[in-house]
Order: sequence, then C-alpha cells, then structure tokens
Amino acid sequence: MNERILNVEGMSCNHCKSAVESAVSEVAGVTSVDASPEQDTVTVKYQDDVNMEAVERAIYDAGYDVVKA
Amino acid sequence: MNERILNVEGMSCNHCKSAVESAVSEVAGVTSVDASPEQDTVTVKYQDDVNMEAVERAIYDAGYDVVKA
Repeated sequence: MNERILNVEGMSCNHCKSAVESAVSEVAGVTSVDASPEQDTVTVKYQDDVNMEAVERAIYDAGYDVVKA
Repeated sequence: MNERILNVEGMSCNHCKSAVESAVSEVAGVTSVDASPEQDTVTVKYQDDVNMEAVERAIYDAGYDVVKA
C-alpha cells in the first residue's frame, strides 16, 4: 500500500473534512483518505495505478488548495 | 413579517452556513434564514406562530452555539 500526506489549506471544520474525504475517495485507485482540518493535511492511501493529479484536482474542485512542498 | 438576528458562534465556512440554514428552514413558521459565517449571525424571518426556542435548538443541534445577549 502506498501512502502520501498532502498539505491542504482551507479546511476549517468537520464539514470540510467530510467534503474532502468524499471527493478524494471517488478517485480511482484511492483506498482510504483521512483529512485533518487541525493539521491541514490529507492522508491518502492508494494503489499503484492511482492518478495523483486527479487526487489533487478533486481536492481543488472541492474548494481547497493543495500546498506544494 | 418578523425578523430576528441571532448571534451564533462556530460557523467557519460555507458548509456551516448551509448546515445552519438547512436546519433552521425546517422549523415551522420560519419563512427565510440567512447565516453569515463572517458576521457570526443568523438572520431569521418568521411568522407570528414560530417557536423561537425550536429555532435556537435547531442551530444548537446542527453543532453551533447561540450566544445570548
């Protein structure tokens, strides 16, 4: 299992957490996602064939910014 | 038409706004509701027979605190 922790700005409450998790979980290849408004992170577990750009786009489309390292 | 502006804490984003507006709009006698996360207010327009305690309870049950003047 692969795991990646994205830094995401703008998640202010549990509604935001749910919105991000719902959006990311619909991306093909994602097996689990946990968003933390407190830590401004989204932890994604995924299979080898995931399109990480699609993950980031899903977060963006939900209304949040992925911060590039 | 009657109007009352409640002070409500904890609305941090537009998801919160929608959650409060949805909850309050279901209370009998409420004709319109506008929640402002920026101003920490919920503006309720209502008919004479509204139960304002039910309005406040709806806000509370949605996860937010009505601040008493």
